[in-house]
Amino acid sequence: MLKALERASVLVEALPYIKKFYGKTVVIKYGGHAMINPELKEAVLTDAVLMKYVGMNPVIVHGGGPEITGMLKRVGKESRFVGGLRVTDAETMEIVEMVLVGKINKEIVTRINRIGGRAVGLSGKDGDLFQAVKKYRKVRTPDGRDEVADIGFVGDISRVNSGIVSIVINEGYIPVVAPVAVGAEGQSYNINADYAAGRLAAALGADKLVILTDVEGILADRNDPASIISVLHLNEVASLIEQGKIDGGMIPKVECCTDALAGGVNTTHILDGRVPHSILLELFTDQGIGTMVQK
Amino acid sequence: MLKALERASVLVEALPYIKKFYGKTVVIKYGGHAMINPELKEAVLTDAVLMKYVGMNPVIVHGGGPEITGMLKRVGKESRFVGGLRVTDAETMEIVEMVLVGKINKEIVTRINRIGGRAVGLSGKDGDLFQAVKKYRKVRTPDGRDEVADIGFVGDISRVNSGIVSIVINEGYIPVVAPVAVGAEGQSYNINADYAAGRLAAALGADKLVILTDVEGILADRNDPASIISVLHLNEVASLIEQGKIDGGMIPKVECCTDALAGGVNTTHILDGRVPHSILLELFTDQGIGTMVQK
Amino acid sequence: MLKALERASVLVEALPYIKKFYGKTVVIKYGGHAMINPELKEAVLTDAVLMKYVGMNPVIVHGGGPEITGMLKRVGKESRFVGGLRVTDAETMEIVEMVLVGKINKEIVTRINRIGGRAVGLSGKDGDLFQAVKKYRKVRTPDGRDEVADIGFVGDISRVNSGIVSIVINEGYIPVVAPVAVGAEGQSYNINADYAAGRLAAALGADKLVILTDVEGILADRNDPASIISVLHLNEVASLIEQGKIDGGMIPKVECCTDALAGGVNTTHILDGRVPHSILLELFTDQGIGTMVQK
Amino acid sequence: MLKALERASVLVEALPYIKKFYGKTVVIKYGGHAMINPELKEAVLTDAVLMKYVGMNPVIVHGGGPEITGMLKRVGKESRFVGGLRVTDAETMEIVEMVLVGKINKEIVTRINRIGGRAVGLSGKDGDLFQAVKKYRKVRTPDGRDEVADIGFVGDISRVNSGIVSIVINEGYIPVVAPVAVGAEGQSYNINADYAAGRLAAALGADKLVILTDVEGILADRNDPASIISVLHLNEVASLIEQGKIDGGMIPKVECCTDALAGGVNTTHILDGRVPHSILLELFTDQGIGTMVQK
Amino acid sequence: MLKALERASVLVEALPYIKKFYGKTVVIKYGGHAMINPELKEAVLTDAVLMKYVGMNPVIVHGGGPEITGMLKRVGKESRFVGGLRVTDAETMEIVEMVLVGKINKEIVTRINRIGGRAVGLSGKDGDLFQAVKKYRKVRTPDGRDEVADIGFVGDISRVNSGIVSIVINEGYIPVVAPVAVGAEGQSYNINADYAAGRLAAALGADKLVILTDVEGILADRNDPASIISVLHLNEVASLIEQGKIDGGMIPKVECCTDALAGGVNTTHILDGRVPHSILLELFTDQGIGTMVQK
Amino acid sequence: MLKALERASVLVEALPYIKKFYGKTVVIKYGGHAMINPELKEAVLTDAVLMKYVGMNPVIVHGGGPEITGMLKRVGKESRFVGGLRVTDAETMEIVEMVLVGKINKEIVTRINRIGGRAVGLSGKDGDLFQAVKKYRKVRTPDGRDEVADIGFVGDISRVNSGIVSIVINEGYIPVVAPVAVGAEGQSYNINADYAAGRLAAALGADKLVILTDVEGILADRNDPASIISVLHLNEVASLIEQGKIDGGMIPKVECCTDALAGGVNTTHILDGRVPHSILLELFTDQGIGTMVQK
Repeated sequence: MLKALERASVLVEALPYIKKFYGKTVVIKYGGHAMINPELKEAVLTDAVLMKYVGMNPVIVHGGGPEITGMLKRVGKESRFVGGLRVTDAETMEIVEMVLVGKINKEIVTRINRIGGRAVGLSGKDGDLFQAVKKYRKVRTPDGRDEVADIGFVGDISRVNSGIVSIVINEGYIPVVAPVAVGAEGQSYNINADYAAGRLAAALGADKLVILTDVEGILADRNDPASIISVLHLNEVASLIEQGKIDGGMIPKVECCTDALAGGVNTTHILDGRVPHSILLELFTDQGIGTMVQK
Repeated sequence: MLKALERASVLVEALPYIKKFYGKTVVIKYGGHAMINPELKEAVLTDAVLMKYVGMNPVIVHGGGPEITGMLKRVGKESRFVGGLRVTDAETMEIVEMVLVGKINKEIVTRINRIGGRAVGLSGKDGDLFQAVKKYRKVRTPDGRDEVADIGFVGDISRVNSGIVSIVINEGYIPVVAPVAVGAEGQSYNINADYAAGRLAAALGADKLVILTDVEGILADRNDPASIISVLHLNEVASLIEQGKIDGGMIPKVECCTDALAGGVNTTHILDGRVPHSILLELFTDQGIGTMVQK
Repeated sequence: MLKALERASVLVEALPYIKKFYGKTVVIKYGGHAMINPELKEAVLTDAVLMKYVGMNPVIVHGGGPEITGMLKRVGKESRFVGGLRVTDAETMEIVEMVLVGKINKEIVTRINRIGGRAVGLSGKDGDLFQAVKKYRKVRTPDGRDEVADIGFVGDISRVNSGIVSIVINEGYIPVVAPVAVGAEGQSYNINADYAAGRLAAALGADKLVILTDVEGILADRNDPASIISVLHLNEVASLIEQGKIDGGMIPKVECCTDALAGGVNTTHILDGRVPHSILLELFTDQGIGTMVQK
Repeated sequence: MLKALERASVLVEALPYIKKFYGKTVVIKYGGHAMINPELKEAVLTDAVLMKYVGMNPVIVHGGGPEITGMLKRVGKESRFVGGLRVTDAETMEIVEMVLVGKINKEIVTRINRIGGRAVGLSGKDGDLFQAVKKYRKVRTPDGRDEVADIGFVGDISRVNSGIVSIVINEGYIPVVAPVAVGAEGQSYNINADYAAGRLAAALGADKLVILTDVEGILADRNDPASIISVLHLNEVASLIEQGKIDGGMIPKVECCTDALAGGVNTTHILDGRVPHSILLELFTDQGIGTMVQK
Repeated sequence: MLKALERASVLVEALPYIKKFYGKTVVIKYGGHAMINPELKEAVLTDAVLMKYVGMNPVIVHGGGPEITGMLKRVGKESRFVGGLRVTDAETMEIVEMVLVGKINKEIVTRINRIGGRAVGLSGKDGDLFQAVKKYRKVRTPDGRDEVADIGFVGDISRVNSGIVSIVINEGYIPVVAPVAVGAEGQSYNINADYAAGRLAAALGADKLVILTDVEGILADRNDPASIISVLHLNEVASLIEQGKIDGGMIPKVECCTDALAGGVNTTHILDGRVPHSILLELFTDQGIGTMVQK
Repeated sequence: MLKALERASVLVEALPYIKKFYGKTVVIKYGGHAMINPELKEAVLTDAVLMKYVGMNPVIVHGGGPEITGMLKRVGKESRFVGGLRVTDAETMEIVEMVLVGKINKEIVTRINRIGGRAVGLSGKDGDLFQAVKKYRKVRTPDGRDEVADIGFVGDISRVNSGIVSIVINEGYIPVVAPVAVGAEGQSYNINADYAAGRLAAALGADKLVILTDVEGILADRNDPASIISVLHLNEVASLIEQGKIDGGMIPKVECCTDALAGGVNTTHILDGRVPHSILLELFTDQGIGTMVQK
């Protein structure tokens, strides 16, 4: 009984947070370890279902991960690189799309349904959700010149038609979105999932964008996990990049945050997806975890 | 962090229960110690607010308690008894109604609003919610004859117009109902709160009726609190009364349960209101607490 | 038959007025003699029911009157005065609230229901309708200094959440509102009923505020009831106060009118509540009665 | 002022009737003197507007009257008779329809709009409201044989599509309906207005059918206007016809009433349209006027 | 089968046009030969029904044509002229209204219903759709002076209350509107149908105004039907009138177009109503037919 | 112009069919040659878009076709057979699902969007649309015994939750459904597409089920394509199977039809998908094509 009472008091302590986020839309970029480790998978998707039941509107945008590489290997597809970048040719894109939309997306949907939520999976092609144009990358050639490389079917989102996502939310489902977009001729484009999540958050007028990563957050001293920066303001970002404190793969993530903030999202969060229930911890505790980037 | 994780896991474990009761209406008869002790008060009403936020529709029907007696004393009103029953004359009824509707009801409403819910208080007069006829009681006279005693403005509910309660629920409020009814000539009637809760639960088509009492529940052996009967079926009630296991003040409570069940309520619960968060414990744990009476 | 025909023609003559006020919200401050005299009571509330049936939205805000004094006397509560003002201590406030909310409000509700309308009673605590802060009064001490007196639980409205009133109106009920407000800590505050009515009228975007008083209206010559000012413009009020033509208890009433007009109410009316059906007479005749204050 | 008070009391006395008929649909067959005399016209249509404003749903079905005859004369159309019945040939029907739909109907609509209501005129062709088949009449030839006479474009209603009427009602308008119907080939049929009103009342699930006539009602002694039968039950009708107390033009009117009652209309009324405001008198007085035929 | 395939391909080719006009409102001024020739009648109204089924909202405003003259002759009404203009006296207006509203309008309604659409006919009096003031015309007297002639009941629209038309559209009907308006005293006014169509198109926020005429469109060389101007911009109109290329009866039609464009209509079309299905040809082919006047 | 007129007349002739099917739901099983040949693909999906625009609700359930075999070959997956049946092991199922959901489904969606419709792709996992249990097949062993063979992840639909499909329809999209179902443990099951279409049609209360095949329909004489049976009644099916006129792959298709009819679908159609626009030809011509199976 004592234990039961403690449990009750935990629920009670969650009340102010439940109240605070009631009716709010939260876009979750789901990727990294949290997509591989079975316990973490279960934890993230349970968090989403719980959020839905206590009145929030979670939206999941997932990445690809190792399954794409695995499938490419199975079909004997070798990757070609230009200036260090993998070229997504038509055959690669076909595999990428099948794995993202036909495998990963549906596994997430099924898992949510089994946990007790109701999910609907969407590709960026459904209802023309993500329309894209070809993305070009400047690369440095071995002889030191800058060239614009054709890296194939990698796209930039030119337009978000979020209508179908809103419908799915309002009808009580959790939308699960694969980062595939459609070009003007109907061709498929691979889209960076962080970026897709940020654009979708802005289009939906979401309250929060949450990006699950495989690091603690943004660190003041990259060798000290305890030096995590809890709150980062938009106007501090540029100088942190200059100082090299934000670098590498973190730069595009932070840029997705700043873009989302510019698009009207209220707060954005870079969380450590390796911690189970990191989203709940962020939402339901005062101190939060990871780094919050805000205006 | 560890503690935070444990807390997250408690929330996660609550999910199946949240799902189970999503959208269900639960009428709570609120009385006894839980109305007197400040911590218990806070706990019961917090439970109600939490229920509302996780998608249930709690409805509170409260009793009177010691404040009525206190106010009667303050105005120097002496109680008259007939055959052991207190007579509710017009002057007493006036005080009863003022305390129930003007004091207790509004205190509950205010406390819910402070906790973070949104409450609206109703008397049985509002929207003609409870219409009543005079109740007569058979009493045994000192010389052994049975007489019908006039015990004044005590009523039996003749009709429940639950429209205003449904409106208040659907608009996102928690209704808080005082057990006062109105007679055909507009006079006020005092109504037993257990009975009012049961009738309202039936009229609303509620899923559950929860009666907070000052005992553990129904006991198989009244001297052994551990002998609590967890589940009682409708058809066992009569024999338990005959055996004297259900007696005294418990009889009308059990009758409210059986009436509510007959009126279409799914399950009814007699809980120990002296345990903090007893309602949460009943709803959010497998074993439950107290005694559940069901069909 | 002849008499019936005359009656029909009266109904027909009412048509232009019914049309004019169709769908309009009218807040009625109900107090004074009209709350004491049984015929006047019946007349005022019948007017409200009739207004509802012919398409208007009447809202009643009632005062307290002699019943509060009576109950204070019954509990042996002596009034303390500071600088001529009655101090509303916690015990007094408790009695005030019980009488206003638990007795007077419910009597009005019941009477409306008996006449054939459908009423719901609300306190300023329900749905946090009236939120208040403590009011301080400057008083002159016997030795001629100005002091700020603590007159207890008397409040100024800091915020009106009129949502629950609108819901009740739209669902076809007549809201009956007691002038009790709630403070930040949940404490009760007594609010002047004229003032509460004016603030509520502004919050609802009402078309009219009607204040029932015990005088004919505002008189050009206070000794001549025939000198009533039928229409008063906002910009004439200040000079009339200066000339002393508006003085005493009439000043706060006129100020409620000017505040309501500033808050967007279309017209405000100070009517003689001692005349039966004074509201109907104002609404359904060309000349109107009492004094109309307008922009 | 005294007069104003009397007027107020008339309004107050109307309240129980307003309440009683709130939300009810009343189909009014408008014809006879009430369509010719200017004061009566104004009175009938004002009654309809008043009914609309106090929450009823009046529907007007009008007849033709002397204007049809006038127009036929103007175009030099002579009437042909077969067995005493006027033959409605194609040319006659054209005139009948133009006068009913293009003149009388629009005059009623305009008058209602001027009085302050909002009216929409409909022919039985609009939305295929009245579909009809040719009506044949048995006539006795001069030499005593029974023959089926072709009386031209006179129709029996085969189907009522009342959708457009309901739409117009629900959008706040008073529908004004001309008794013209459409045949399977698109041809126009003249329909008896009493009969059209009865069929429409049944199709709408109306509460009342009111037929305005040029007599006091149904008389027990036809020479004594005071012998009016106030209430007539369905099962008494046959014997009154047999006794000859109901005869001539009253027979089809009573049959429309009995048909409407069979179709689910609650009560039907034969009123004296020569009395101004006869509809108001029926609705808003206890004794009523004319003859009520009911189940 | 081959023929069936060709037919299928025609449907398929219509798809882009169906898509383009989906949900758009198109006001059609229906007059001239298209109202007289039976095949053309059938074609125009079939076009309207087809438009409705493929998602457009056609609204028909019809003219009068030879039937008015015919009926005036039948009643022996001689026309009086002032300065070359026919005077519409009260008697003439009565006939005009009866023919327009009671005959032509209902014939169109009936035909649409027979084709398989659902139509409701409206006069400008219904719901006060067209309110008008008297129109005065300057005329030159025989002795060369300018005079303002009273040409009787000819009106200019002072206000369009298009509410009833929108209701009828939204409920799935095709509104058919007769160009009769109502004056302040309830008198009828005859309104030019082109002008009524233009005003209604603006009030409805229509996408298109289509005027059916008895010419090919606007010609660059009036003797060469092949010189039709396909697209005319608003700012070219004045100079074409000056050059005399737009003259006579075409001037008011073009003015209706420019007024409608000023009122917010997207494009306006002057089509040759003598060509069967001219509206379909305009809507469903790339080149269109007739002259389009646009901003 | 002449050609344009002919085209207009084709549209006009389509009107009765458009009217007939307005608002009706038609489930199309899309498979065979019509999924391979580019012109046929375009034709089928254009038909669906056209159906949507003219007011029908098409729903597409697609099969897999040669792309599954192609991908299995690419990953070097060899098929194992038991008693002549291909065993769908976990690895095969993974490929099947990726191709169906991640490739074919999204290609159809994209093509529809490019044609001008709005499509949303769904797997049977989305919203738990198709729930399945494992299917067992009786097979004859080489030594002549009957055995129940485990053919792996091939399922029978145990429950259809068509809610998400209805939502997508009502919001104006064309749902495109892949025949993959989900088991109780979240595993994927391959479902026969004809069967999925039939079950979905019944669950949606569809008006029609259309199965596109690679034959003319059901033939009375299998060697004579001209012997096609246009209309087949439910009660004739059994004898045709017995006579061997319905055999082979046609048997399960006809069974899907009879199941759908039993489930409430109005008519079912077996069409030759090799004929372009076969669906339009069936819907928009009197004689229809292929074989209609009906009650």
